[in-house]
This record gives sequence, structure tokens and C-alpha cells, in this order.
Amino acid sequence: MASTDIATKELQNPMDVAEYLFRRLHEVGIRAVHGVPGDYNLSALDYLPKCGLDWVGNCNELNAGYAADGYARVKGISALITTFGVGELSAVNAIAGAYSEFVPIVHIVGQPTTQSQKDGMLLHHTLGNGDFDVFTKMSSAISCYVARLNDPQDAATLIDSAIRECWIHSRPVYVTLPTDMIYAKVNGDRLKTPIDLSSPSNDPEKEDYVVDVVLKYLRAAKNPIILVDACAIRHRALEEVHELVEASGLPTFVTPMGKGAVDETHKNFGGVYAGNGSNAGVSDVVESSDLILSIGAIKSDFNTAGFTYRIGQLNTIDFHSNYVRVRYSEYPDINMKGVIRKVVKQMGKLNPAPAPPINNTLPKSEQTSNSQTITHAWLWPTVGQWLKENDVVLTETGTANFGIWDTRFPANVTAISQVLWGSIGYALGSCQGAALAAKELQNRRTILFIGDGSLQLTVQEISTMLRNKLNPIIFVICNEGYTIERYIHGWDASYNDIQPWDHVGIPKVFGAQSGYKGYRIKTRDELLKLFADQSFCVSDDLQLVEVYMPRDDAPAALKLTAEAAAKRNE
Amino acid sequence: MASTDIATKELQNPMDVAEYLFRRLHEVGIRAVHGVPGDYNLSALDYLPKCGLDWVGNCNELNAGYAADGYARVKGISALITTFGVGELSAVNAIAGAYSEFVPIVHIVGQPTTQSQKDGMLLHHTLGNGDFDVFTKMSSAISCYVARLNDPQDAATLIDSAIRECWIHSRPVYVTLPTDMIYAKVNGDRLKTPIDLSSPSNDPEKEDYVVDVVLKYLRAAKNPIILVDACAIRHRALEEVHELVEASGLPTFVTPMGKGAVDETHKNFGGVYAGNGSNAGVSDVVESSDLILSIGAIKSDFNTAGFTYRIGQLNTIDFHSNYVRVRYSEYPDINMKGVIRKVVKQMGKLNPAPAPPINNTLPKSEQTSNSQTITHAWLWPTVGQWLKENDVVLTETGTANFGIWDTRFPANVTAISQVLWGSIGYALGSCQGAALAAKELQNRRTILFIGDGSLQLTVQEISTMLRNKLNPIIFVICNEGYTIERYIHGWDASYNDIQPWDHVGIPKVFGAQSGYKGYRIKTRDELLKLFADQSFCVSDDLQLVEVYMPRDDAPAALKLTAEAAAKRNE
Repeated sequence: MASTDIATKELQNPMDVAEYLFRRLHEVGIRAVHGVPGDYNLSALDYLPKCGLDWVGNCNELNAGYAADGYARVKGISALITTFGVGELSAVNAIAGAYSEFVPIVHIVGQPTTQSQKDGMLLHHTLGNGDFDVFTKMSSAISCYVARLNDPQDAATLIDSAIRECWIHSRPVYVTLPTDMIYAKVNGDRLKTPIDLSSPSNDPEKEDYVVDVVLKYLRAAKNPIILVDACAIRHRALEEVHELVEASGLPTFVTPMGKGAVDETHKNFGGVYAGNGSNAGVSDVVESSDLILSIGAIKSDFNTAGFTYRIGQLNTIDFHSNYVRVRYSEYPDINMKGVIRKVVKQMGKLNPAPAPPINNTLPKSEQTSNSQTITHAWLWPTVGQWLKENDVVLTETGTANFGIWDTRFPANVTAISQVLWGSIGYALGSCQGAALAAKELQNRRTILFIGDGSLQLTVQEISTMLRNKLNPIIFVICNEGYTIERYIHGWDASYNDIQPWDHVGIPKVFGAQSGYKGYRIKTRDELLKLFADQSFCVSDDLQLVEVYMPRDDAPAALKLTAEAAAKRNE
Repeated sequence: MASTDIATKELQNPMDVAEYLFRRLHEVGIRAVHGVPGDYNLSALDYLPKCGLDWVGNCNELNAGYAADGYARVKGISALITTFGVGELSAVNAIAGAYSEFVPIVHIVGQPTTQSQKDGMLLHHTLGNGDFDVFTKMSSAISCYVARLNDPQDAATLIDSAIRECWIHSRPVYVTLPTDMIYAKVNGDRLKTPIDLSSPSNDPEKEDYVVDVVLKYLRAAKNPIILVDACAIRHRALEEVHELVEASGLPTFVTPMGKGAVDETHKNFGGVYAGNGSNAGVSDVVESSDLILSIGAIKSDFNTAGFTYRIGQLNTIDFHSNYVRVRYSEYPDINMKGVIRKVVKQMGKLNPAPAPPINNTLPKSEQTSNSQTITHAWLWPTVGQWLKENDVVLTETGTANFGIWDTRFPANVTAISQVLWGSIGYALGSCQGAALAAKELQNRRTILFIGDGSLQLTVQEISTMLRNKLNPIIFVICNEGYTIERYIHGWDASYNDIQPWDHVGIPKVFGAQSGYKGYRIKTRDELLKLFADQSFCVSDDLQLVEVYMPRDDAPAALKLTAEAAAKRNE
């Protein structure tokens, strides 16, 4: 609708811009909004309750951004409210991470009034140079859409477009909300028509063409396999992927960023492929396959154990949200979902080789070990034996992000990590948002593995978890600093050390009274006993577990990846 | 020197770029570098010790940026090292604040190798789109100079220019350091010539002209006064200002952002001018003056108690680092320092009115009060009675930033606050850097006043203080949340509440053993007793004092300013 159309007709159902915006957020499934109050957004916050939205109230904006990211990864989309300049800039790293990793966050920034901006007033939270557009420009580089709400005439249209773009591209959008616009009136009747969140359909003739090409190669292949990566999750193609896995019977693998995309207890599931960092036996199968159906790949250094893939493009069909590539033939502007759906329908019966067996048993060296030291080789398969269906599992950039490759998930586990962007501290903030989302969805546990170094960046969000009565289980890997960095450079350098903290005591100083339990675990037996304790496994309390591990131990995949990174940095 | 000059001659004294850079930082007075390690900067950190630089090792990059800001405000300049993407973006808010408030920080960002960048590799810490310039562009908007160290041929020249620009403009500069450039060779002999940090001289004829104009009005004025603001401090004109105050005998006032610029025990000193938020009796004198020598003004909303100045441009001479304005006549490209120096020399004897008396006595209402409740009206003059010469005093955006207007400083106090940028949480990070700088300078105490709301944003930097054995005194104003925001909007709104913390317990969980003392202060007598305790006043320990104050109490100036902000937001 052109803005003049709105201008020329009477508003039948005048509604304040803030209410309109928040009702739209509710419509797409958001129930809680993350952020930090600031004087340019306070009045807007007044509208949240009547729109059915809770205010989280984070300790700072970076953490709020991480939390919004975690919430979106569980619930599908999220919202973040910050204030002009100081607030929004603190969140920029989190938003860039969401942009990089395809996470849809509606970032709403409270601004000074449109008049103050026009007048270039010398206000607090400005650079003092009268430039009110500078921060918007900075965020434009990490947003797939920018909506400047400066005029009631197009505000509703811009809001709808922003939310749609956010959803479709699965990336952050940036929405400015000057304080005078909060109360400006738009046509509330627009809410009767939900925002169209459907992806544009593929051109049918083109889609059929691509399907034929895919089928030709699929039928000719002797030992095809499926490899599922991050964008299958982020671009919401999991239903199609699951149908393909089921109907084809093909051995199915995931990349590190694809963890959680498929049911890891399914008979077709063969484990994690990451080049030299793959699960035992996996790289032989994947790399000898004559056709890899690669779905939603992001072949970044950390997702490929340092670019150690050995699969050729001649043996690959790449499925993406906006193109398909068969060997070297590219088919732009086509969404994988429609293609996969038709491939499933038309492929007929294939005769797949069986997937290699994969389970949670410990590696041989650990099975026979009498050691009580908690090592990565022992920890991660053991965690897999303890996890339950529907768990939300977060791992931090560091040892946990690589260790989790060796954890076999139960069905329907959501895995959250930031393998590409890799901002340390992310996972704790994200855990707050994920735990809130899990609480809304009910009966899902939220479990975080984070290192003692990373925890320090965002520790105060434990306070936000307590304030919002969330009950994640937080495992703090106590290994005296930045182990991932030691493996890259500076093994004994003091810059990789940290101040030692009493982690178990932290929730208490952040106001935990009842509603909190803390544990210190130094041996395998202690951890096994804890895992067997049902009051630990299912609890309404926030729980924090210090897990002491050797400073110089790391998952094998991390060692490989770090070595490659160190070499590339020279 | 053109880069070809370097290219064509042999390097007599080849030196690694990282060493050259760090030796230059040392040359301009930096002794400690703030930041967080990351894999693209680790190798560079190895060079710090041999260049005489300590590594601080902050808990996160935003806090590190704030700390670098505080360090620069005490020592004159500072350096910050972050890593590509994730690290640098977390610091963006701090850098923007330094840009806004004229604080010189050399921000060094470790990057992937120049080759990886050219190849557009899909590396961690990228947006996944091969764009390695996107973050540099974002930082360009908040830096006065960008040095991309991509080529050994011009690296040394760019480093020198960056440090010079940083110093001259008193604003952040951004320096990229790809990992392969760390080891690239430059001509170490350049270090024999120090970087020229002198400001460009004024054109003598033009300067004389301006001086004549200033003198004409100054001699004609009946009751001239001096008003000193932030840029007199930030552009290093204090020596000239002090000479002017001394030689002229004129009544001298400071703005809130100018606090600490002049000796507040000097007989000429008349107090804080901030329009309606001025100290008692001050606005009458300032606003009835027929000539205000306004030095380094930043007339922002929070620095003027909501734009309540009532001084006319016809009665004003504005002195700035890059222009002078006499009434409405502007003289661009002229630095105040040379002008003021000549004015002092040539003005002869003036016959100034005496400055209004100003002291640290309590307001009458408080003098007669029997209340034990710690109110703002009581606290801030009382703090003035307790402070000592050479103290570094930090106040956080919130009640403290306004309360301090009523604190009369002893001589040579450095006041640190962020009145224009106003990012909450700033002062705690800044305190870490300021305390480290104060330790280097010896015999200076560092004292912080921060609210319980603001503290939550950056709390982990208490850990960095402990790790670096710093001994600031941290007063936490416990008033149940964001009081400054309540005064603007949402008096009882839950979004202005916070999770209650045990502040005294925090340093302990952050690893404080001995070397820490905590106090809970709920009455005036308790605070007075603490102030009288010499083991409190001078201590090698970090000390944290909870000061309980009523939720709904605020300094009068804050109330005025908040009211104006609320009105403008409508």
C-alpha cells in the first residue's frame, strides 16, 4: 500500500505506533522482549504488557542481544529494545553475530524525537555533532532491512516489512522509534491481516528443471549421502530435510553447525562430518561418497576443522535458501525447500548403503581408563548419555563448541552455538534467552556448557536468569583460562590466564536465595553421581556446576582446528 | 616521508611492526594496554613486555574500552587491543563515547592475514560474506583517523600519523593489524625522532587580530567572568586557563563537564554554572555578567541542566581548539591556547568583581536536620569535605553525575564522568583504567560513585581491578534501580527496577582474598565514621562501600534535567 493511500483515508481504528509494533511482534510468536531501559525507549516499554509481551530487563545490551539471539533460535524470532547510541552500539556485536549466523532479531532502537533530530540538537547519547543517522548507518551493515519510523503515514507499512524481511531472510532488522512516534497513530485495522511470512514461491518450471537435474544425479549415484548444515536449520528447511532422510534412507551426517538438525537416534544418522575433525569413521564414508546432498552449508574454518573437507564439487549438490548448485551448475533464485519436497516425491526407491553405526559409547582409551580426571574425551560422550529428548543445549566458543561434536543427542534436541561468529561470552547471554523460550514452550530443559574464561565476559546475565526465575543448568568448565587460545598461540602466556573466580558463589551475590543450587565436581564419579540424581536432572532451580578439567586438555577437533588457525595466522 | 623513500632504501634497523607500534605507544606515555586477547591479536601481545607495556587483560571489550577511556583521562592517551569483528564491535560503544567526549584512544584491532582478506576466506569472526572491511567502515564514523596496516612500506608512517592525530584531535583512532603484519619489518631508526605532538601554530597575524578583538571587549566589560568547560580539559588548555584565572583575577566558574579543570579552592572560584542547575548564587552572577569568557564549551542538554542557560551570544567569547567566536564573529582555524596566552600577556590589570563565596558547607536544611538518612543534599557536600588533593573522582551517569555538582574539590582533583555520551556502566570500567593510571602516577587515590543499576552493566571489571592489584574506593549507591530514569519516565514501572545484589560479596566471588574490604553504610554517622577512619582513607586494598539511599531521592539538578528531558521526549 502506498503511503498516500493511508494518508487520504480516515483511520477507522487509530492505534499508537508502539502498540501496533508490539502486537505484530506478538503475532509472529514473540512473548518476551529483551533489552535495557533507556530514556529514549521508556515510554514504549509501557505498551508491552497490554500487547501480551513480557519485559526481560537484561543487565546490559550486549547480553540482551545474545539473549535475543538464543530466544530466536528456540522460538523462531525475537525482539530487542535498546536506546539511541549508547544502548544500540553495545548490542552491535550480538547483532552482527545474528547477521552472520542467520538469526532473526527485530532490533528496536528508541531515539530522540524527530524534531530534535531535525534540529540537530546537542543531546546526551550523541556524538555532539548533530548527526543522528550515524548509528543507523553502522547497523545497516549488519541488518537485512532498516525501518526508520519517522512518519505515521508509512510507519505501519515499514513495521510489517521489517518483520517480514527479518523472518524471510532470517537475519536482524533495525527499527528506529523516535519518542514522539511512540504515540503517533496508525491504522490498527491492518492487524486483521497477518503479515505474510511465506517465502516467495519458486518459479515452477525452473523448480521442475532443477528437480530433474538433482534426480538424474541422485539416481545415478552409487553411494549418495546427506550432509546437513546450519542453513537448513536457520532457513527452516528441517521438515523437508526430515522427509528426505526418511524417504531416501540415505546415510545422513551433520556438520558442527548442523548439530541438532536431524534426529541423531535415527537409523540413518551417521555422525558429525568436519573433515579431519569428523567423528570416528565418518570421513571415510562421506569422502568416498559419489554424491553429497549438501543442505545449507556454511563451510567456514571452524565448521570444517580448519578447511579440511575433502569432498569435491563434482560430487556435490548444494541446497540453499536462494540457490541450488549441482556440481558446477548454479541455479540462482530458487529455494531448497520446494526442490527437496519435489525430489522426495519423485525420487522413488533408492538402495542406500547403511549409515555407519554411531552411539554414545566412550572411546576405547576412556573405557579402560581408571582415571578420575574429567577429560574432554570422556566428558562429551558421557554428556550424550545423560541428555534427554527436547533438551536445549548451548555450547560456548572454546572447548565446549568442539567437544559437543562427540555428544550424540537424543531426539529433538536444539543445539545452540556460534561456530562462525564465535564471540566468546555469547553462550551465557544466549542461554538466558533460550531458557526463557524453553520455559514458554514447556518441558524443555536448557543446558549450557561454558568455559571459565568466556563466562567472565557476560556473567551478569545469571542475575537476569534469577530475576526471571529461569532454571538452566550451567556447567562451567574450570580449566584456568582461554584454552582455545592457548592451542592457537601463547601456551603459557599470561594473557591467556584469567582471574580465578568462585563460580558457585556467583548466583548468591546476584541475589539468588532459594531457587539456586551449586556444585563443585572434580572427578568422573562425582559427575556420574550428579547425572544420576533426579533432583538435579529435573529442577525448578537454576543450577551451576563447576567441572574441573585439566588446563591443557582439549577435544581432538579443537586441537586440529586451532593448529590450522595458527598456521593461517602466520 | 613518501612510502617510496622507504622502499628504495635498505632498512638499517629492521624492526617488527608490532614492536614499532608499541614503542611509539610507550613514547607518548602509555605504560599499560587494555583489551581482551583473541586469536588475531595473540602474537602481537607477545611484544608488549619488551616494549615496557603491561597487559591489563580485561573481562570484556566494552569494559576494556571504558577502562582505556579512564586511563587516557588521567594519563593523556591510552591504547586498546581487540580482535577482529567480535572484539572490536563489543568496544564500539566505548569508542563512540571517547569520540563524543574527546578522549584519545589508540584502538588496535588484530585482523586475519592480508592474504586471507584478499582471498575473502570464510573465517570465524566474519559475517560469512567475504567482506573484511565492514567493521573498519563502522569504526570510521567514530574515529578521527583510520590506519590500515596492510603494507610494511607505509606501516610506520601510518602508525606515526595515527598516534599524532589521536593526540592532536584528542579522539580515538583505529589501527588494523593483520596477523602477518605483526612480523613485517619497518625502519626502526624512525624511533630516534619522536612523533611531533605539537598542535599546528596559529597564523601569527590572525592570532594577533583575534587577541586584539578579545582584549577590546575584555577591557570594555564591567563584570566579565570565566566559564570553563570540558574542551579546556580535553584539548589540554588548562595551563593557559590557569594563567588566565590567576592573572585576570576574574570570577571563574565551571560547567558540570568542566569540573576539575580549575582549582576549586582558588579565591576566584565561584562554583558550577549549569543554568537552573547551578550552585546556589552562581546563575545570578554568570547571567548578569556582560562578558563571559567561555572556554571549551559543550552546551549539551545534561551539561546545561536541560538547556537552561540564560547567557546571550552578545555577551560571550567562545574559545575552542579550532576556532574562536567573539559575539557573532567567528574566527575559524585558530587554537584557543595561543590566543589565551597572548591575552594574558597583554591584558594588563583588570578590576574584577570578587567571586561569590563557595564552600563545602551543607545546605541549611541539612545543617539543622537530625535525620540519619543519607540524602543527596547531604552526601555530596560531605564528600567534598572528605576528598583530598590529587584524588581521581569518577561519577556514573545517574544521580552521582549530578550530585557531584555540589561537591567542592580540593586542588588538583581529576574528575571523570561521561555527561555528554552518558553510557551507563561506563564509570566502573573507566575506574579500572583510571586507578591503573593513578597507580602509575603514584600517590593519587581513585574514588568511584556508581549506582546499583549502572554497576550491573560492567560489574566484572572489579575482577580486573583485583587481578591488577588496584585499590580504588567504590561507593555503590543502593537505591533500587535506575533512579535517573524514574525521574524521566516510569516512576514505579518495573522496567526501572533491578535484581537486588549483594555488592559487598561481589569482590569475594571475583577472587578477592586479602586485598579487599567491604562496608555497608546506612546512616550519616556510619559514613562520617568511615570517612574519619584513616585505614579506610589510605589503603592498598580495593574497598567497596554500599551506601543506602532512598529510592526516590535525587540531586536537585538531576530532577530539573530529567524533567526537561521528559518534556522533550513527548
